Amino acid sequence: MKKSNKDKIKIRKAKKSDSKIFLKLVDELAAFEKLNPPDKKGKKQLLKAAFSQNPKIKILISECGSKITGYAIYFFTYSSFKASRTLYLEDIFILEEFRNRGTGKLFFKKLLNIAKKNKCGRMEWVVLDWNENALNFYDKLGAIELSDWKTFRINL
Amino acid sequence: MKKSNKDKIKIRKAKKSDSKIFLKLVDELAAFEKLNPPDKKGKKQLLKAAFSQNPKIKILISECGSKITGYAIYFFTYSSFKASRTLYLEDIFILEEFRNRGTGKLFFKKLLNIAKKNKCGRMEWVVLDWNENALNFYDKLGAIELSDWKTFRINL
Repeated sequence: MKKSNKDKIKIRKAKKSDSKIFLKLVDELAAFEKLNPPDKKGKKQLLKAAFSQNPKIKILISECGSKITGYAIYFFTYSSFKASRTLYLEDIFILEEFRNRGTGKLFFKKLLNIAKKNKCGRMEWVVLDWNENALNFYDKLGAIELSDWKTFRINL
Repeated sequence: MKKSNKDKIKIRKAKKSDSKIFLKLVDELAAFEKLNPPDKKGKKQLLKAAFSQNPKIKILISECGSKITGYAIYFFTYSSFKASRTLYLEDIFILEEFRNRGTGKLFFKKLLNIAKKNKCGRMEWVVLDWNENALNFYDKLGAIELSDWKTFRINL
């Protein structure tokens, strides 16, 4: 797809009316990561988590011209030793044909601004170890890998 | 220290009156992990995060007889693909002389119960890669290591 000057990239908060396209993008990210997307019930729960009065997650949307091209899900965690909040980026996804146009950089700029406004001491996220493009991007951003920590999970 | 039958181990919610001993244990965990503990201002913020009306963190305390022997800090995060909350264990610490008595197991039992009550799909935490005792303990618990994910951070 040819980049046109008209295709201005914008990052904004997701609205409830974005739900349908947002859920489609969630499926696309799951396919890209070779993971299971939420099922029908899960998708309903996900929208509730985002658009209820006390939202558990926050969603940003990227637009290129009038097309929704990607999304980011974040929420706040907490660091006991920093004694401050952390902005945790749960997901970031940009449709393949809209990559390499600066959308990812704009997402991170927006997220870092939100983190600063909320007095966060850190921003953190995880990435699959085979996702070379993402790893290169995060390296260029100046992010540090926490290679001396191991993550554990118990599924319930 | 000899284990006595009188030394019953109990896990309970932390109270504001536990603040002084709790902060001492935070310093001990930081020393054990060779990391910087929160400074005076940070300690004040940490107590506020725990004991304000909308707490950002929750604290459990372990008692052996009448002595406070350890703590755990947790909060809830969110998994987009599971479309459910995750109980995230930020810190767990037990004083050296009170280890190997089952306190860690009781902490995890309590935390898993809290996770289930809150309809969490997962419980997660991180551990330093040189902490062999903890790694063995988590392995015995049946926890899985998320070895295909890398964690990134930007300090603000």
